[in-house]
Amino acid sequence: MPSLPRPLGIALLGSTGSVGTQTLAVIDAHPDRFRVVALAARAPSEQFVNQVRRYRPEIAAVSEGVPEYSTDGMSFTVGSSALSAAATHPSVGIVVVATAGHAAIEPTVRAIEHGKIIALANKETLVCAGEIIMPLARSHGIAIRPVDSEHSAIWQSLAGDSLNHVSRIILTASGGPFRQTPQRDLDAVTAEAALSHPTWSMGGKITIDSATLMNKGLEIIEAHWLFGLPYDQIDVLVHPESIVHSLVEFIDGSQIAQLGLPDMRLPIQYALTYPDRAPVSGNHLDLAGIGALHFELPDDTRFPLLSLARQAGIAGGTFPTVLSAGDDIAVAAFLNGAIRFVDIAPVVETVLERHQNSGAVTLESIAVADAWAREAARDIIAGR
Amino acid sequence: MPSLPRPLGIALLGSTGSVGTQTLAVIDAHPDRFRVVALAARAPSEQFVNQVRRYRPEIAAVSEGVPEYSTDGMSFTVGSSALSAAATHPSVGIVVVATAGHAAIEPTVRAIEHGKIIALANKETLVCAGEIIMPLARSHGIAIRPVDSEHSAIWQSLAGDSLNHVSRIILTASGGPFRQTPQRDLDAVTAEAALSHPTWSMGGKITIDSATLMNKGLEIIEAHWLFGLPYDQIDVLVHPESIVHSLVEFIDGSQIAQLGLPDMRLPIQYALTYPDRAPVSGNHLDLAGIGALHFELPDDTRFPLLSLARQAGIAGGTFPTVLSAGDDIAVAAFLNGAIRFVDIAPVVETVLERHQNSGAVTLESIAVADAWAREAARDIIAGR
Repeated sequence: MPSLPRPLGIALLGSTGSVGTQTLAVIDAHPDRFRVVALAARAPSEQFVNQVRRYRPEIAAVSEGVPEYSTDGMSFTVGSSALSAAATHPSVGIVVVATAGHAAIEPTVRAIEHGKIIALANKETLVCAGEIIMPLARSHGIAIRPVDSEHSAIWQSLAGDSLNHVSRIILTASGGPFRQTPQRDLDAVTAEAALSHPTWSMGGKITIDSATLMNKGLEIIEAHWLFGLPYDQIDVLVHPESIVHSLVEFIDGSQIAQLGLPDMRLPIQYALTYPDRAPVSGNHLDLAGIGALHFELPDDTRFPLLSLARQAGIAGGTFPTVLSAGDDIAVAAFLNGAIRFVDIAPVVETVLERHQNSGAVTLESIAVADAWAREAARDIIAGR
Repeated sequence: MPSLPRPLGIALLGSTGSVGTQTLAVIDAHPDRFRVVALAARAPSEQFVNQVRRYRPEIAAVSEGVPEYSTDGMSFTVGSSALSAAATHPSVGIVVVATAGHAAIEPTVRAIEHGKIIALANKETLVCAGEIIMPLARSHGIAIRPVDSEHSAIWQSLAGDSLNHVSRIILTASGGPFRQTPQRDLDAVTAEAALSHPTWSMGGKITIDSATLMNKGLEIIEAHWLFGLPYDQIDVLVHPESIVHSLVEFIDGSQIAQLGLPDMRLPIQYALTYPDRAPVSGNHLDLAGIGALHFELPDDTRFPLLSLARQAGIAGGTFPTVLSAGDDIAVAAFLNGAIRFVDIAPVVETVLERHQNSGAVTLESIAVADAWAREAARDIIAGR
């Protein structure tokens, strides 16, 4: 497969978030390879305006804010379809989908319909809409390239081999800050403690999801869609050092793993340069210096969201959407002090129990299920 | 690349050795895929005669013994060209080169000339004759498939990526039984202690080479030829558990590793089934059960043969042949009690120092250098 033309036009949805800013760092390091064609964010924050000033994209899109906003000679495309306009701009070759939440789903659908390659960092796109996205991408001959370090590791480990030879994939999990915390002490976990992730520096929601292992549960669902594997061929292995980013086991017992320092620039860049590779500054893994890598099975008892997520994935339909939306509300309630850390899973479980699958997965049924789950979660939390 | 026709006709040179018998176990497990066309060994031992009785190959070759030997209705091809006759038999698709020593070189050359794929387990073939073998294989469009677990790991980790993207390959080493033995205690090491390898069950010579790290030095030279990489892009990492069989580091800092239980059937079978894979019974790696993988740098002071081997590889010509032959004699002298464990390296070093490179590498110059080095090593040992 040939490399993409240079410079490659990039639409970056969610440019002010953690993946967004690291994507810009990757682009900065390779001005000969990449060109920022479109920047998009939720609101025209000072950070976003500075990005637009610096990169001078052909389109700067914000989904919320004053229409026809313009300042310092910069004009902004504003409104609910602004992200889709950014993602489908004619000069765009690849769309980095780093927007949080299910706002990413529709622009991703539009980008695929317009023949854009997708570098996917947003979880909800496949968790909620995998049943829409993957057949659509196949019918348009569009690759969905993972940006998540775990899925990138699987992708890199699979390179050159056939999915028919895969017996299972093994997603690694750091285990979060409470990996060794006894069940009885989880009751008293504070938001502050939960926000201190041992290896990765990430946003608030994803850090709590990492502490509950919900993050890994969502990644199981994503892996199911990305690699087309049944759930019983997707395992999770706790690996506190976050050096082995995931593994593929083949039918002969051979396992291929991708290793690297915990640095999001690596999977972001690989999604942009594939099938080529390019240097990443300051990224040198020294296994002898690290000394030891540890592995253990996840504890389903202390971290029930992992198996709840797997069950929601197997149930399919709008259950993964409800899982994700219910978790959003429960995590926010925990961060606000409304519920305890150990209450997150029961809230999500109760929302899932009350849900009636809405049949066909469409953008509309996802939106309806999402709204329903948020309301249901709020009711459950209020009623506790 | 399509899979080879089934059943694939196999010539097995060195059928009574460790790799030989494990190759037969792989063949036994897949009678639909593989067929024994040729068996070859040094001498018609009882074990070899039993193999011939069982597999009924089209040619049974022994390099030493009575010409025209035949028993129980089985006939044997005997003599110095018997291995080449086995390797070039018209029904052979792939030759497993598992013969010990440099007796493997000529049959490998002949097999390549006859268009046979090579599954290479013999070290001397590339260590001594890489300069002949690799250009010959290229000109005949013949793949040299590694059977060594380390080189198989590199091969599997490289799959689907370009050598241009490789920053270095990292061969793992168990470190042998004396990994943690202080320098002063190495003086008193017995042959018995040296023969107890921590993770792999192998022959005597290779087990001592594993204890001195010479084995890893020879693998550096093999890797240089197999993958066409300069010596400064080939590193060694001690990994006592022998689970990570080797790694490839790419220019972006990403490392791909192949992991598996220490079981030679896996790399043997992969060399035979490539690009396909097939189940290997009882081969299930459970990283959580193992718990921890350790890594450290090799100690060049206590194990000087590692850097001696690298220097011989860089010097090229007949130096690697002299390294290998000198080590053969020194290891035999250690096993016979004639020298101490710590004397092996100085003997090899002195042989290398006395060697005059003979210029062009040919089968003849290799044979001359080999004979010279054995004689020189014996002289040095006698004179100590």
